[in-house]
Amino acid sequence: MARSVKVVFLGGVGEIGKNMTALEFGDDIIIVDCGVEFPREDSPGVDAIIPDITYIRENIGKLRGIVLTHGHEDHIGALPYYAEELKVPVYGTALTLGLLDRKLSERGIKADLNRVKPGDTVKLGCFEVEFIKVAHSMAGACALSVTTPVGVVFVTGDFKIDNTPIDGKKTDLQRIAEIGAKGVLLMLGESTNVERKGSSTSEMVVGQGLENIFVANADKRIVVACFASSNYRVQQIMWLAEKYGRKVVLAGRSMKGIVEVASRVGELQVPKGIIADGVGKLPPEKLVVIATGSQGEPSSALNRMSKGDFNKVSVGPDDVVVLSSTPIPGNEKSVYDVINNLFRKGANVIYEAMNEVHVSGHAYEEELKIMLSLVRPKYFIPVHGEYRHQFKHAEIAKSLGIDERNIVIPDIGQVYGVNAHSVKQHSNVPAGNVYVDGVVMEDGHSVVSDRRSLAEYGILLVLASVDTAKGVVAGDPDVIARGFNLTDEIESEIVRTVRDTVAAADFEDSEGLGDLARAVKKAVRKLFYRDRQFPVIVPIIVED
Amino acid sequence: MARSVKVVFLGGVGEIGKNMTALEFGDDIIIVDCGVEFPREDSPGVDAIIPDITYIRENIGKLRGIVLTHGHEDHIGALPYYAEELKVPVYGTALTLGLLDRKLSERGIKADLNRVKPGDTVKLGCFEVEFIKVAHSMAGACALSVTTPVGVVFVTGDFKIDNTPIDGKKTDLQRIAEIGAKGVLLMLGESTNVERKGSSTSEMVVGQGLENIFVANADKRIVVACFASSNYRVQQIMWLAEKYGRKVVLAGRSMKGIVEVASRVGELQVPKGIIADGVGKLPPEKLVVIATGSQGEPSSALNRMSKGDFNKVSVGPDDVVVLSSTPIPGNEKSVYDVINNLFRKGANVIYEAMNEVHVSGHAYEEELKIMLSLVRPKYFIPVHGEYRHQFKHAEIAKSLGIDERNIVIPDIGQVYGVNAHSVKQHSNVPAGNVYVDGVVMEDGHSVVSDRRSLAEYGILLVLASVDTAKGVVAGDPDVIARGFNLTDEIESEIVRTVRDTVAAADFEDSEGLGDLARAVKKAVRKLFYRDRQFPVIVPIIVED
Repeated sequence: MARSVKVVFLGGVGEIGKNMTALEFGDDIIIVDCGVEFPREDSPGVDAIIPDITYIRENIGKLRGIVLTHGHEDHIGALPYYAEELKVPVYGTALTLGLLDRKLSERGIKADLNRVKPGDTVKLGCFEVEFIKVAHSMAGACALSVTTPVGVVFVTGDFKIDNTPIDGKKTDLQRIAEIGAKGVLLMLGESTNVERKGSSTSEMVVGQGLENIFVANADKRIVVACFASSNYRVQQIMWLAEKYGRKVVLAGRSMKGIVEVASRVGELQVPKGIIADGVGKLPPEKLVVIATGSQGEPSSALNRMSKGDFNKVSVGPDDVVVLSSTPIPGNEKSVYDVINNLFRKGANVIYEAMNEVHVSGHAYEEELKIMLSLVRPKYFIPVHGEYRHQFKHAEIAKSLGIDERNIVIPDIGQVYGVNAHSVKQHSNVPAGNVYVDGVVMEDGHSVVSDRRSLAEYGILLVLASVDTAKGVVAGDPDVIARGFNLTDEIESEIVRTVRDTVAAADFEDSEGLGDLARAVKKAVRKLFYRDRQFPVIVPIIVED
Repeated sequence: MARSVKVVFLGGVGEIGKNMTALEFGDDIIIVDCGVEFPREDSPGVDAIIPDITYIRENIGKLRGIVLTHGHEDHIGALPYYAEELKVPVYGTALTLGLLDRKLSERGIKADLNRVKPGDTVKLGCFEVEFIKVAHSMAGACALSVTTPVGVVFVTGDFKIDNTPIDGKKTDLQRIAEIGAKGVLLMLGESTNVERKGSSTSEMVVGQGLENIFVANADKRIVVACFASSNYRVQQIMWLAEKYGRKVVLAGRSMKGIVEVASRVGELQVPKGIIADGVGKLPPEKLVVIATGSQGEPSSALNRMSKGDFNKVSVGPDDVVVLSSTPIPGNEKSVYDVINNLFRKGANVIYEAMNEVHVSGHAYEEELKIMLSLVRPKYFIPVHGEYRHQFKHAEIAKSLGIDERNIVIPDIGQVYGVNAHSVKQHSNVPAGNVYVDGVVMEDGHSVVSDRRSLAEYGILLVLASVDTAKGVVAGDPDVIARGFNLTDEIESEIVRTVRDTVAAADFEDSEGLGDLARAVKKAVRKLFYRDRQFPVIVPIIVED
């Protein structure tokens, strides 16, 4: 039987987040991306959701390296949890590794990071991985052309075809065409925007949209919320600030951190002296605030501004607030809550439904067709999408002449063997969501509790009625443990901790009981760290 | 001081659901609409959310009647909870009252329902209420022109300006123009689609879109999911079924019930002999299924079809499934889960992102301008929207020349007094969400537990680990009560009930632990009914 390259889908199929694919041939495995899925409201008590890597653990001796397409959380965010365990070299471009390193350093984790640039090729066991420049909503994004003993596997990564990118670095269609002309065995193509017809809009258009806002609001303070990782968006805002004589205040921890990383690796040009430490005494018309929170995240700078408790910026009628973003499905309610609150404070709010202040970083239907037409793969597997996206992407591939029998729509945990003669499904491997509860312990070690550790460590419910007027717990907090034994000693300690946490809470300044629940959870969690126990802790705090 | 009409906002402002407004003059009060808000995922243990009517209770002697604009749940859905208590005549068109009566009868509640038709005027105390035909996504929708001692208050209700409605009954622009010409003191205008530019599309266009699907899929079974209350949509599907020689199967309890009501009151023409009792032996190409579940509701017909456990219809490659709807914000994830599951079963799924299979029932920007231009109110209050919608609607009113000082954006609980000279804010009244937990008791009485009854009756947590292989509870279920005392006797009874419910559950056929949690909640709730206790019950069922 002819040998084949095995493609193991550990994430990013049947879903948009948590991207992770392994390629295996003989005794060699490489991992492409290792991302996180952000917790949803229906995962209480969970800080992050990461891929199950049981299959990699069982074959750890074969693992030659990890290659990263770009630095978004859904592609690199699980590495801080796994880097120490996997202990293999990691490859990525400057910005990708800069962002990863920032996350690793926060946790005191060291990893073998190897910087590449587009055009570089890395040899990992029998695999040769070439990094190819693609445009995306952040710098340093690459497609990967992986030469295997049975042919080339082309991974598009996240991409768009922006002909006027801010940094002039276009998707390298020339090189992709060359690779396609030589023959590609298999293409893994991202499917995020397959439902959108035509082509995506250039990032440059957002610059024009934002400039209109600067001109029309010359007498107001301008607050722009966007993803901290959108270095192009931040770049354009900084250029406009410079042009219109405003200082820039960065609001939000990740905004500051990522701007620092992006400018250090040369992917962001910060005009000299433009950053102000704080709002200080600067008049509104001399200021632009670039803030986190474009997805309505509870503790983000923008959300806190909308509630009036971000100490540096108090939003009011002197402000125009721009949400340079689109809500990720599932975040709509949070985003619109923030917009409503900002309007209530008297600010003028500009968001996507009204103006051209955001473009997507993902290829639309016609761009996906261009990619397929240049790569001309024998086999095609649509990835990075829910099933409906993958299905539609498969339909497009068929319409371009790819044989229906040469297209498969994979699900998570599935394995396909591909060679010049066939694509065959192998038996599944363990895959799915690992729930991370408690990211960092005080001593800097990471703590992972997945479903099995939930069985291993159990679940702890902490229920307290709080008298918010007095700032105390009413009656006795209740504590229920499942899956482990609660000694009287630890139970009284938990009760004491809950009382202390409530007593220490500042109800004047609080964002309500949600904040208190988080504080209780954190404090109780610490009690268990001592004994290396990691139950899932679910605080239920109700007003008395 | 000149007397004024008081407008009391009990719901439907700062939010799209739960519409309820009271108009008060001297000793007379009327209520316009009395709607429900559907529970969100963040309201565990809650069956419905309805308006707080404390203010009405405190002034019950003044209440002269309830007038309903149309029969959607967010306009009539709270009446089954309040009709017995309020005991005043209710006025609405045939379909509105038909739908309301269906809900009241289910609960064994009688109310004084008075049918009106467009053009009718009802005198309630000092108020004269004229019903005016408007087009909407269901029949029988009306705007209201309320003549008060100090001028006319015009309530648009939900509307669009459809020039080619299915039943030929257009928005009565002529009458609205007459009323506007005579002078309108105040207009309350719905704001749902204010962010959408241009004008909405006619319902007729959906008929064309659906017909294309009938033609292109002549050899397949067609399943169309839409709101049961969308009588025009159901009508068009039935006409197409008749034209293309298919029988119609109605799937879902509310679909059957509402079709019965709509045809009985003459708002739906069911072609003779077209309804089939079930799928039976009919070949796919001779069948159209009209199903509930266009919002991804867990127990709906469509969701169960997507999971393969709707006994009458097993969806597969012989089906084309049309979602004739758009996800209500917050429902996106559920809707896309259903779509993904249907694709996985091999069905061809057609939804809004792809085709013209849905239009909105709410006016777009240009239609809102037409309404404002015809009514020409002195004062304008945008309602039926989140704050951002109300804000934008206010901006539109300004752009049409309404004085900025004559526009207010109300929040829930606010009261405004309006007369020919001024609009003034009065002190707030109690308003907000009342959480209904447990709609119907076995004996047909309704059970309402609001926030105060939460304090009164407390909350009960039931925590059980279930061994799904054996179908039993592992270990002992835990029971925690807050806000009331749990006797040993009732605690053992709860534990026994939980065990029995789990033992009785059919894990083969189950939709997972969610179903079991609902069953446990229901069974435990019954234990408390005996003693007229209504704690909020939160079941937490985890897999052992």
